[in-house]
Amino acid sequence: MLLSLAGVNVHVVDKRETKVATGQADGITPRTTEVFQNYGLGDRLLREGCRVHMALSRRAPGITAPSARYPIDLALHQGAIESISLDSLRTRGVELSNDAAELADPTAYPVEVTLERLIPNGTIHHEVVHAKSVLGVDGKWPEIRLWVRNAFDIAMEGEQTEFIRGVLDMVPDTDFPDIRNKNLIHSNNGSCLLVPREAERIRIYIQIADADVCDPKTGRVDKDRMSPEQLLEVRSTEVSLPLFANPTNGINWWTSYIIGQRIAAKYSANNRLFIAGDACHTHSPKAGQGMNASMNDSHNLAWKFAYVLRGWAPMSILSTYESERRKYAQDLIAFDKIYATLFSRKPVTKENLKGVSHEQFLKTYQTFGGFTSGIGVHDDQSVLINGNTYPTLVCNMVVGERVAPQDLVCAADSTPYNLQDFLPSDFRFKLLVFTGDFNEPIQTQKIQALVKSLEQPESFLNKCPRERFDITTISRGNKLEFDYRKVPQLLRPHWSKVLLDDTDVSGTIGGKGYAYYGIPDEGAFVVVRPDGYIVMIIPLDGSGEINKYFAGFMNV
Amino acid sequence: MLLSLAGVNVHVVDKRETKVATGQADGITPRTTEVFQNYGLGDRLLREGCRVHMALSRRAPGITAPSARYPIDLALHQGAIESISLDSLRTRGVELSNDAAELADPTAYPVEVTLERLIPNGTIHHEVVHAKSVLGVDGKWPEIRLWVRNAFDIAMEGEQTEFIRGVLDMVPDTDFPDIRNKNLIHSNNGSCLLVPREAERIRIYIQIADADVCDPKTGRVDKDRMSPEQLLEVRSTEVSLPLFANPTNGINWWTSYIIGQRIAAKYSANNRLFIAGDACHTHSPKAGQGMNASMNDSHNLAWKFAYVLRGWAPMSILSTYESERRKYAQDLIAFDKIYATLFSRKPVTKENLKGVSHEQFLKTYQTFGGFTSGIGVHDDQSVLINGNTYPTLVCNMVVGERVAPQDLVCAADSTPYNLQDFLPSDFRFKLLVFTGDFNEPIQTQKIQALVKSLEQPESFLNKCPRERFDITTISRGNKLEFDYRKVPQLLRPHWSKVLLDDTDVSGTIGGKGYAYYGIPDEGAFVVVRPDGYIVMIIPLDGSGEINKYFAGFMNV
Repeated sequence: MLLSLAGVNVHVVDKRETKVATGQADGITPRTTEVFQNYGLGDRLLREGCRVHMALSRRAPGITAPSARYPIDLALHQGAIESISLDSLRTRGVELSNDAAELADPTAYPVEVTLERLIPNGTIHHEVVHAKSVLGVDGKWPEIRLWVRNAFDIAMEGEQTEFIRGVLDMVPDTDFPDIRNKNLIHSNNGSCLLVPREAERIRIYIQIADADVCDPKTGRVDKDRMSPEQLLEVRSTEVSLPLFANPTNGINWWTSYIIGQRIAAKYSANNRLFIAGDACHTHSPKAGQGMNASMNDSHNLAWKFAYVLRGWAPMSILSTYESERRKYAQDLIAFDKIYATLFSRKPVTKENLKGVSHEQFLKTYQTFGGFTSGIGVHDDQSVLINGNTYPTLVCNMVVGERVAPQDLVCAADSTPYNLQDFLPSDFRFKLLVFTGDFNEPIQTQKIQALVKSLEQPESFLNKCPRERFDITTISRGNKLEFDYRKVPQLLRPHWSKVLLDDTDVSGTIGGKGYAYYGIPDEGAFVVVRPDGYIVMIIPLDGSGEINKYFAGFMNV
Repeated sequence: MLLSLAGVNVHVVDKRETKVATGQADGITPRTTEVFQNYGLGDRLLREGCRVHMALSRRAPGITAPSARYPIDLALHQGAIESISLDSLRTRGVELSNDAAELADPTAYPVEVTLERLIPNGTIHHEVVHAKSVLGVDGKWPEIRLWVRNAFDIAMEGEQTEFIRGVLDMVPDTDFPDIRNKNLIHSNNGSCLLVPREAERIRIYIQIADADVCDPKTGRVDKDRMSPEQLLEVRSTEVSLPLFANPTNGINWWTSYIIGQRIAAKYSANNRLFIAGDACHTHSPKAGQGMNASMNDSHNLAWKFAYVLRGWAPMSILSTYESERRKYAQDLIAFDKIYATLFSRKPVTKENLKGVSHEQFLKTYQTFGGFTSGIGVHDDQSVLINGNTYPTLVCNMVVGERVAPQDLVCAADSTPYNLQDFLPSDFRFKLLVFTGDFNEPIQTQKIQALVKSLEQPESFLNKCPRERFDITTISRGNKLEFDYRKVPQLLRPHWSKVLLDDTDVSGTIGGKGYAYYGIPDEGAFVVVRPDGYIVMIIPLDGSGEINKYFAGFMNV
């Protein structure tokens, strides 16, 4: 979907013939909702999803990342989310050329994929696709994961855990007062996680004792030994639940699984074959990160693909996909180990003073709030991330992190807008010019000097096609007085592109944006990547630094 | 559209063959946006419309009704608004039966309408429709207005004014800094109103000197003497504008008109033929009320039609349409006279100290803010409005006015909701039970007594089918502690129907709702009509009054 929006010719292959109707991944973290909104799809997601505000069995806000634009978890079944993207096909067979020259040529098609499709009459249709790149993202079926990584010759590092879990979706018949909140029920006999979902349903994750699902002869996990009724049985007898949650319409979906905490040794081969999502990292679903990690992998890669395929940047920028996203997966697995272990331990009681207390859960949950919400994800220094030049100029914007949401008002018509909505994932670099206050003569001079330098022949704006950049100016000023024509024409390509740090006419939306971001009186110039991540923060007289930054990777 | 949503069989006839592509009515006041939202259409209207926040040539918030949920004027051409409702046909000929028995029989079809439609081959197709009722709403063409009222034998009261105006839509080529705000330009040589619109356009209303458009031989207005170029000429030479607003893409739409300030002597005949909108009231378009008045006429009538046609209420409730909406039109015309006169007078200058000052305009604008936004509309006492029983029980809710917007949180899952979204125009009466604080034993007792009385055989809930009522409970309480099961089952038909007067988990939405509405500690019971207007406010022990109220008009 992301690549299609970028105008890239995409061929999607999937083992499944139809969309997923129930179950599967469903937790959508606040950052993923922000990303959907950047593609213009956040409203629909918010409309269709079940909003989860409260979490844990002692009520507390479910999201503890203060800057989240959408401070809620959303729950929506994977099929509904897939409806917001693509239809599906099936696949087998990948050949990658060994010719170094062909591999290095951005215009070549060195990947050969052989697709097999079962036709309704029972015969198999073969199709050979020649591609510039292939991205493997699947993960549901172990054999597919294996196939994707084998085809790419990529090993998995890490190990399977001994934690076995069952999971099911149902409409509960209950009078438990917190059934519409996210609940962790942690008892002496086991733990259980409840997450409310759309259509009156809840999802229950249940810890299974090994004996329940292991074949006594082989000692191995045997999924055929389980049924959803047995899962509920485990819940009722093993876990002392403060609720009565019988299904009213049967079980909508269920499965069981062994948690693996593993990560692919590499994420790509020759910058031609890539893997993303469950194909390259597995972990427990407790923290609700699986689908979100996958989507953010693709979000990170999509614009880079588009730049390379359009000839706007060299293939080498694709290496940053692995450096940025493999680090994230490592952090995720480290977090998952802490979290899954807490889950599997017994609770603190008079008899077991070393058990896990609710306070420990809450503290862990809150400590990692920025991470689990997806908000605190931070990319390290690379050819695409320049965080070294002025690290403390803007104290609450961090190079390598996304731009936090903030309401500002349009100078020309006083309409309030969230700054994130000025950063759509449209594959342009966003240039945010925080001018400071035009009533200060020194700021006017600085802005004039900035415009002059941006108009020089060596300016990136003149060296690279203008279509790759989008300029928004954010000024200090009062909406009742400010004249947007004070902003030089170069910095206001349209009347709607001058924003003010002021409240809207109702006085309830916006205001104090400079303070929120920590923009100094002398202003700042902030460069944001097409995927919404800040890559550079410089003073208004630092445009030479931007020229160097873009010269580092952008084809002119 | 409103009737269709109510499940009423509707036949729409229109002289026009296609939707309006440009121009015509376009100003949507805050109350009309609230009404659209009650039909589930507010989001689309807000997405497609141009939002106007600032007004008058000295910047000031455009809307001065503090309780408006949407404190903006929206501008969107009539065709786009019509897309949100129906296709169109054509009409001629109405016959109304003279048989008193047939007229009084709610199941009879005493109206005969003959429709003529021009077929593409040039012949005329005749169709005779027998209807229970006919509603005439058109007003653009004087002959249609005349036809509608003649067919119904209804006279217009009031008079044509001598104010002649031109109006046009265009994309201006200008550097006027306030071009995206609503501007009143009032000069010694005339006045002019600018309103920003969608697609970069603005609308300009221009005062024309009589001589420009009158035939010198007859002394009568001759529209053929005008062209949009002449209108702009008037603007440029006669009005000393602080802007240069040449059209960049030609004139998108224009017209000229004489302002009439007139009102139909009656709004209906035999409760069978009704007129609404421009068919029954004409006034200047300056205050942007035309389309809004029409829509609110229909909104007032729709649910009453539905009740009568379904047999839920006697035909007599239709009489309240005229008593409620004709009073509104009278108020509108009184306002319009003040406003249009201000417009036509010269501004105050050194030479003309008796002229109109900007302060006078601002003051008039603000004084009538509640009225022009549609928020302050107030219906008088009738069989449907019972304002006499406890007039001061809830100090900031007014019987006869709409329920003001306020964010509350759902007790079960902490999702914030606007109370207006619990009052959809779905043709149910809404019963809002403000319980007070359940931690007060006296409140628990009162609620138990209320439930007991509502369960009695003589209770309206038992006498009338339950499908006509929708119950929402609003309690005082803390979202971290409140158990929604405290609310008796009768008052919570679903877990989502218990709201708390508390902020959401972010602490930014909601809170202080009891204080905002002025609900006393002892609680209150508020009855809201299907169109969102409050009809009764009583104490929790006053359910006998509600039985009387519904017995006054509702068929059991």
